[in-house]
Amino acid sequence: MMRPKRFLDRVHVFILMVLCFIAVFPTSVIGQGKIRRFKWEVKYEFKSPDCFEKLVITVNGKFPGPTIKANQGDTIIVELKNSFLTENVAVHWHGIRQIRTPWFDGVEGVTQCPILPGEVFIYQFVVDRPGTYMYHSHYGMQRESGLTGMIRVSPPVTEPEPFTYDYDRNVFLTDWYHESMAEKATGLASIPFKWVGEPESLLIQGRGIFNCSNDLSTTQNIVPGVCNATNADCSRFVLTVIPGKTYRLRIGSLTSLSALSFQIEGHNLTVVEADGHYVEPFIVKNLFIYSGETYSVLLKADQNPSRNYWITTSIVSRPANTSQGTAVLNYYPNHPRRLPPTLESSILRPIWNDTRRRLAQSLAIKARGGFIHAPPKNSDKVIVLLNTQNEVNGYRRWSVNNVSYHHPKTPYLIALKQNLTDAFDWSFTPPENYDSLNYNISQVPPNANATTSDGIYRLRFGSTVDVILQNANTMNRDNSETHPWHLHGHDFWVLGYGVGKFNESEDPKRYNLINPIMKNTVAVQPFGWTALRFRADNPGVWSFHCHIESHFFMGMGIVFESGVDRVSNLPSSIMGCGQTKR
Amino acid sequence: MMRPKRFLDRVHVFILMVLCFIAVFPTSVIGQGKIRRFKWEVKYEFKSPDCFEKLVITVNGKFPGPTIKANQGDTIIVELKNSFLTENVAVHWHGIRQIRTPWFDGVEGVTQCPILPGEVFIYQFVVDRPGTYMYHSHYGMQRESGLTGMIRVSPPVTEPEPFTYDYDRNVFLTDWYHESMAEKATGLASIPFKWVGEPESLLIQGRGIFNCSNDLSTTQNIVPGVCNATNADCSRFVLTVIPGKTYRLRIGSLTSLSALSFQIEGHNLTVVEADGHYVEPFIVKNLFIYSGETYSVLLKADQNPSRNYWITTSIVSRPANTSQGTAVLNYYPNHPRRLPPTLESSILRPIWNDTRRRLAQSLAIKARGGFIHAPPKNSDKVIVLLNTQNEVNGYRRWSVNNVSYHHPKTPYLIALKQNLTDAFDWSFTPPENYDSLNYNISQVPPNANATTSDGIYRLRFGSTVDVILQNANTMNRDNSETHPWHLHGHDFWVLGYGVGKFNESEDPKRYNLINPIMKNTVAVQPFGWTALRFRADNPGVWSFHCHIESHFFMGMGIVFESGVDRVSNLPSSIMGCGQTKR
Repeated sequence: MMRPKRFLDRVHVFILMVLCFIAVFPTSVIGQGKIRRFKWEVKYEFKSPDCFEKLVITVNGKFPGPTIKANQGDTIIVELKNSFLTENVAVHWHGIRQIRTPWFDGVEGVTQCPILPGEVFIYQFVVDRPGTYMYHSHYGMQRESGLTGMIRVSPPVTEPEPFTYDYDRNVFLTDWYHESMAEKATGLASIPFKWVGEPESLLIQGRGIFNCSNDLSTTQNIVPGVCNATNADCSRFVLTVIPGKTYRLRIGSLTSLSALSFQIEGHNLTVVEADGHYVEPFIVKNLFIYSGETYSVLLKADQNPSRNYWITTSIVSRPANTSQGTAVLNYYPNHPRRLPPTLESSILRPIWNDTRRRLAQSLAIKARGGFIHAPPKNSDKVIVLLNTQNEVNGYRRWSVNNVSYHHPKTPYLIALKQNLTDAFDWSFTPPENYDSLNYNISQVPPNANATTSDGIYRLRFGSTVDVILQNANTMNRDNSETHPWHLHGHDFWVLGYGVGKFNESEDPKRYNLINPIMKNTVAVQPFGWTALRFRADNPGVWSFHCHIESHFFMGMGIVFESGVDRVSNLPSSIMGCGQTKR
Repeated sequence: MMRPKRFLDRVHVFILMVLCFIAVFPTSVIGQGKIRRFKWEVKYEFKSPDCFEKLVITVNGKFPGPTIKANQGDTIIVELKNSFLTENVAVHWHGIRQIRTPWFDGVEGVTQCPILPGEVFIYQFVVDRPGTYMYHSHYGMQRESGLTGMIRVSPPVTEPEPFTYDYDRNVFLTDWYHESMAEKATGLASIPFKWVGEPESLLIQGRGIFNCSNDLSTTQNIVPGVCNATNADCSRFVLTVIPGKTYRLRIGSLTSLSALSFQIEGHNLTVVEADGHYVEPFIVKNLFIYSGETYSVLLKADQNPSRNYWITTSIVSRPANTSQGTAVLNYYPNHPRRLPPTLESSILRPIWNDTRRRLAQSLAIKARGGFIHAPPKNSDKVIVLLNTQNEVNGYRRWSVNNVSYHHPKTPYLIALKQNLTDAFDWSFTPPENYDSLNYNISQVPPNANATTSDGIYRLRFGSTVDVILQNANTMNRDNSETHPWHLHGHDFWVLGYGVGKFNESEDPKRYNLINPIMKNTVAVQPFGWTALRFRADNPGVWSFHCHIESHFFMGMGIVFESGVDRVSNLPSSIMGCGQTKR
């Protein structure tokens, strides 16, 4: 009698050990490459990125946060300590698809519970493709306060990039407000509605120069003694180059609101990468970049080396009176503090409402020959998403097909895996179209009411989905805004852009199915449409939203689920809120 | 065979039902009186309590929050919804002993995990004694932003109060900053240390008048267009009285920093209650009140009724240049907006550093005849707590016996009940005295180093404990501050006060053991000492700390445990952080 029982006991112990091993070392998330560990502490510190001192979120004391550098296939482990005093946090790894680790996508309410003050949360994921990515807070409107940075993934030496350069540099772009994130968010969620306004500054690599003596009427937030050109961080970013050398500039934008143009005085920029995909090279004087996008451009230091040059960024698509952001391209061995001989105001910037020119750049971005991932010829489903501004119970909101999005208290991923049927509205099927025949996209919505919902789009796993982003007039006459939409967990093919209302029978005939670029973020222009296609082949729950911080906060997003049954057991670290609170 | 099994099943089901019933209706927390339910939503809103518009925490849209009115023995149920966007919350019921409900004391890190955004937390407790109490946030320095209000408990009609009055009114006092709580807290936790500074205003019932055109050098936070006398809430509190009638004024202070004097022009105030205990009546012109204290005073409307009178409050114990807070005592039927004919600056306020006069009031407060709870004649333990300012790793801190306090991530109550031996430093026994022979309390600490610890004082259940609060010099020469110490879960007898260093052999001989007042908050004056005694007869874990928001934040507190083994099963709602995160 004893033998079999002891044998069974041993089997049990063995199974238990194997299970423990799997739990502790989930093989699925270990890449083929190195393990790169980072210990991060996030907290508020007084900083003056544009000379105005305010609370800024830092990572290990830095704003922007440190750049993550890795090789394709590496496993990134970030031990993130929340050292805020009363505020939670969650960090999204923008552009990283989180294959087999959908629980580490970092979206509060979608893939995880927030990280409490004092807690350490461990993100662990594989960077499976080379390219330029970013990270940022994905909780409330926290990103605006500074928890932002870049991720740079190199290909293996056996798969060289199709272009060469001598040096690799980051150029990280943000817009900057002087009021706190809490003030901005409270204003947006107030009756009467209080718009965030245009940013006070544009920052290049976290640096800017705000004119402290500026007109008070346009900048309500000047506090004597707090804005000062002698403040610690108050200086321009300097990019030093050696004459004749070629620089890869990895340009990323995590603006809260602004669409940008970026330019370097007297220099051409050759676009070679977008959102981690190689681009058939083309040259620009002004690079248009929307929040959530990254580009690599090649810069050759081929101009008169006896002087320095302006690097500027300016707002497009909105009639903002925010000063352009400035930095200095410093030709070695000139002094880095030596200002260019030209006036910074002389640098040509595009007219803010020249939509056609911006669209031209978008259309110019194609996948590079030899690196084309051909899209499926057909899709299984077409979802048309009308972007509108609305009112819900007196609150100003953004909506998609007249549904304004909000998070449930229990993150979707957990609710779906654990079958928590009352965690969100499972019964609500968000509309896959709008009344396109009768809706006039050029007028203020005649009936601005919308509903709010936390219902989600459930996609058949492996199916191919087309999404048409259809822009429309806002609540203001003759006004339509630019919305950069970002898809989590996937890249999509950009099949086409158009002006006016999308024509479901005609426009698809003109889709680029030959060499469309793949991206994770794409803009829909005022009164226009953008068509994209993706394969729902990454098991998980994925946010798809306008990357303008206030627009997403006001409901401009949706959530896709597909293959959630294929998702492995969730780590307990993502739980602890809503119905998963013990 | 079947019978016994089915019988056992039925027994099991019955036991299960009983257990469920106990879990849902814990009889221990149901009082003898009514159940009073409140639904509260806390959030940030733009308000201008002193004419300066800023984010204020409101309860159901109100600042200060609504007054809880109840009768002795009632059970209060507050369903608190956290409608902050990224911030957690916890609410303490100040002066309520939480007998049999130590888990609802509302102290984040001590008795509960914080309440997450979107969550509803249900506080349920019995108000077991009549008197004047308060509630406020007990998380980070959140109280400073406005989550504050009063609790008024009436005795049963069979036990009338020993004084009469016609009307019952609240006079709730706070000081007010224009910078955000996050800015203040970040400054305190920075190197170099950034002191919070003196408040911009003093508020009476949440109202004040900040002089928007004040000297910029003293008020760094004037933002044009934000401070405006036309702002919505910008008006003085008016207390209307009918000539000849007597008013009970329930005066409570939840200042962040300031010790106050309170006075009503031309009127005497008769002190009759302190922290829920009847006081042998005495008359004052100026009532001194420290943060965390409540007093009831009787005001007779016995002056010339043809005019109105100033109500003022001013800062004592610090050389602040904050304007006095003003309200209007309006004699009916004069117009409530009619200002008194006198200058508000003519109202006599005590000299800020007249410590002797403040001490005299403290000494005058005795338990009322007929309502004396005699203290035990002896104590089982004497704990002497030296209050000092220190440096820890370059950070400015406050310490008690050279130990600066900080919370663990897992609340003590949970850690102790669940025997989580690594949740905090169980092995550290905080010192019960200091080197009183050799320490010079009148000098800057010669060695300002201190340690930080989350170790706690464990008291024998039922034992009588004396605590001597010994004040000392701060890090600045010839400076010692006033610290109002607040004990959770108990009232204590105030046995004595003294100037200079406490003498352990002589001073106890002069203790008042006849008719000492019982309180939950008591001040220790600059360079002086205060002796108190309490019975450790309330099972739980209880915070004891300086009620100055920044001082507690900087480590000025300790924690007492006693009888934690007698505490019933903890509700799961208080868990979800630290080691109790699932």
